[in-house]
Amino acid sequence: MTADDDLCTRPATELAALVRDREVSARELLEAHLARIERLNPQVNAVVTLDAEGARAAADAADAAQAAGEPLRPLHGLPVAHKDTHATGGMRTTWGSPLHADTVPLRDELVVARMAAAGAIRVGKTNVPEFAAGSHTFNTLFGATHNPYRHGLSAGGSSGGGAAALAAGFVPLADGSDMGGSLRNPAAFCNVVGLRPTPGRVPTWPAPMAWSQLSVQGPMGRTVADVALQMSVLAGPDRRVPIALDDDPAGLAAPLPERLDGLRVAWAPDLGGRVTVDPAIVSVLAASVRVFEDLGATVEDDCPDLSGADEVFGTLRAWLFDTNFSELARRHPDQVKESIRWNAGLGAQLSGADLARAEQLHTKLHERMVAFFERYDVLLAPTTQVLPFPVEIEYPTEIAGVHQENYLEWMRSCTVISATGCPALSVPGGFTPDGLPVGLQVVGPPRADRRVLEVGHAFEQATGFGRRRPAL
Amino acid sequence: MTADDDLCTRPATELAALVRDREVSARELLEAHLARIERLNPQVNAVVTLDAEGARAAADAADAAQAAGEPLRPLHGLPVAHKDTHATGGMRTTWGSPLHADTVPLRDELVVARMAAAGAIRVGKTNVPEFAAGSHTFNTLFGATHNPYRHGLSAGGSSGGGAAALAAGFVPLADGSDMGGSLRNPAAFCNVVGLRPTPGRVPTWPAPMAWSQLSVQGPMGRTVADVALQMSVLAGPDRRVPIALDDDPAGLAAPLPERLDGLRVAWAPDLGGRVTVDPAIVSVLAASVRVFEDLGATVEDDCPDLSGADEVFGTLRAWLFDTNFSELARRHPDQVKESIRWNAGLGAQLSGADLARAEQLHTKLHERMVAFFERYDVLLAPTTQVLPFPVEIEYPTEIAGVHQENYLEWMRSCTVISATGCPALSVPGGFTPDGLPVGLQVVGPPRADRRVLEVGHAFEQATGFGRRRPAL
Repeated sequence: MTADDDLCTRPATELAALVRDREVSARELLEAHLARIERLNPQVNAVVTLDAEGARAAADAADAAQAAGEPLRPLHGLPVAHKDTHATGGMRTTWGSPLHADTVPLRDELVVARMAAAGAIRVGKTNVPEFAAGSHTFNTLFGATHNPYRHGLSAGGSSGGGAAALAAGFVPLADGSDMGGSLRNPAAFCNVVGLRPTPGRVPTWPAPMAWSQLSVQGPMGRTVADVALQMSVLAGPDRRVPIALDDDPAGLAAPLPERLDGLRVAWAPDLGGRVTVDPAIVSVLAASVRVFEDLGATVEDDCPDLSGADEVFGTLRAWLFDTNFSELARRHPDQVKESIRWNAGLGAQLSGADLARAEQLHTKLHERMVAFFERYDVLLAPTTQVLPFPVEIEYPTEIAGVHQENYLEWMRSCTVISATGCPALSVPGGFTPDGLPVGLQVVGPPRADRRVLEVGHAFEQATGFGRRRPAL
Repeated sequence: MTADDDLCTRPATELAALVRDREVSARELLEAHLARIERLNPQVNAVVTLDAEGARAAADAADAAQAAGEPLRPLHGLPVAHKDTHATGGMRTTWGSPLHADTVPLRDELVVARMAAAGAIRVGKTNVPEFAAGSHTFNTLFGATHNPYRHGLSAGGSSGGGAAALAAGFVPLADGSDMGGSLRNPAAFCNVVGLRPTPGRVPTWPAPMAWSQLSVQGPMGRTVADVALQMSVLAGPDRRVPIALDDDPAGLAAPLPERLDGLRVAWAPDLGGRVTVDPAIVSVLAASVRVFEDLGATVEDDCPDLSGADEVFGTLRAWLFDTNFSELARRHPDQVKESIRWNAGLGAQLSGADLARAEQLHTKLHERMVAFFERYDVLLAPTTQVLPFPVEIEYPTEIAGVHQENYLEWMRSCTVISATGCPALSVPGGFTPDGLPVGLQVVGPPRADRRVLEVGHAFEQATGFGRRRPAL
């Protein structure tokens, strides 16, 4: 490993300190990452648009600002890459669709603008499934992203390019979004950290339906502290976003605890019998979860009643897909993938009464979660039901002998949590004997984003799973 | 006027101070109000359920607590009455429907519980239209509420019993709810103050659809400071309510300003040509609005683009009505009024795409309001399009020669504001030459509940319209 490669595997928190202390310039940090992208991205295919020259100019400007004594911002000089479904001003944004192969937005959307305002240096865009639909990152424009831990296997999705870029050391921070697991599934597949925040914690703007709770944007990183640092930049109110939570986001980046004394943990390896999980995953996590007792927590086998979660997620997702894609699919039937057309078609059949029923179930589910979290501080579950699978497969059609009906079915360990309104963190949870990463999902009560970061951090520090880097 | 009657017309803030300073006991204050209710309610018909003995026991307990040196709460010893659509534990709650003539809820809903927890003494329930549908308070159980300013005219609605009870001096504080103007219209008709808060400011619990933005609960009082005092008790987070705003509500009751120097006011007498308003109302308000210049504000004729507001309100309301009432109307067609059946029937025809379109328009409207409020601090408009009308009429079918299509059409000066997500206060805005009250609607940007209170207070202090009590 070269000195440059070392820079590319260190936590963002450390890199920010190195730049702040002038041990490394933003330009040097960028060059290390650009070199690594050049060398390794062809095999990983995580970064699909690269703007080396733009990044160099931004890094030089950051160094000049520092030299001039300007106050440094939290992400000063850190290279970042944005999910290719996030609009970047002046930089191609394809949404993984051939219909947007040449789309160059005029301006950054809010999540991108906030990272730029915090001093991050944007190097490019990370790969996504077409319109971020599904938890496996492939599309007709750029092909599939490979898992840095094993070439030929999926990096997960839909923030798969971001997770793979982090694992491969292409950037120290990446953003993503999560409707049905898209910040958690790829984090689990790539042994990094992804947080699905409480809706409104990271305000999305613009958004076609401002009050929607299903899809959220959020951070990914190689450590929980890196994710917390990024959250402190992404979170916070925006007057244009009616659901934005008002809390000062600075507290999200406060030092995280090493111990969890008195924490009440519920462990639900199959979410109360609700999902089928590959036994290899349960076996890894069951061993890892014991660490919580060493940390001072009490662990009980328990799970909230998740009744209605599938209907809530299925209905609200189909409704959004009809809204976003039905017209597009009618106009360009050959350029919208079948799973999106299927999902939009489900949505086109929905009545107002169907949506009312979903909202009522949604309300009851939220209420049961709040009650469950009176008894427990966090809920633990597998992030994914399957291990990384071959990139050629569109989605797993069987788990432990159980047939999976469609492209959403195998993602239910994440989708049912999306339906609850709770924040959920995926942290590295261990490795199979075969060396494949497994993610542990840490779920907290609504708005307790900081709590899931704390719990994830203590677990990460105690286990060290996140420090096992891929051999690239 | 007797000494008791004097007590019954003073602001809640003064009464709270009198009790705090032991100049009046809670029991004495209650007796004064009970005597007035006994004497005048038969002609006003604002209070439809009275629990004098329960109230006396609560007042005595309040006095005993004070004598024992217990810390006093903000509403200590103040008599209050709750809207009859708000569930009161152990006290009949009819929703104005014969189907609930004998319903006695087991427990208080949150808005009621918060007032009780703040030390208020509940005397009873205030009249509503059947299921609070429509801005005129009449039902088959209790008949119509009369306007204290003129017997035979409507008190407005749906919080009509509450507004009339305040104007008549039956209670110093009352609660209400507002989907399409129900806290504003009756305030305007009865020359009192009503605030439709930003959704989530006063959390509603339980609620069948927790994320719904259309119907909100809130306070009414005879002065803006009284409304602010009540807001400081009603607002604030509740972990069971996902849309609850987190801010500390204590600031809502801070002293209100007398001056409005530098305030930028937009005045929209017909909401940009969008609504037909009785010229008598415009004439009164146009004169009153000049006061803002005396207070240091600048006033311009301007109005935000409210495109889509009617569709947003109409669609979301119909959807809620279908959800809440279609089944009830099917089972009891003779015991649900025609306007509710009509409104629910509209909702039953809605598709998912109709709701998506409404949510998209809702989003754009919210965004335009936020942009408008970059240029202005508040928007002023008439609260109502009509003056109080005879109680025998179900709703006005004509305004200034313009036909009104249905029971919602004449309420559009309020319903279009409901669709924006903005807080809106109705304050006494003057009187017609004939002596009928007119309400001024003060609208602020989303979440700026405190601002509309400040503006309303300064206007109220400068004009004194709220101090002209009815001759009963």
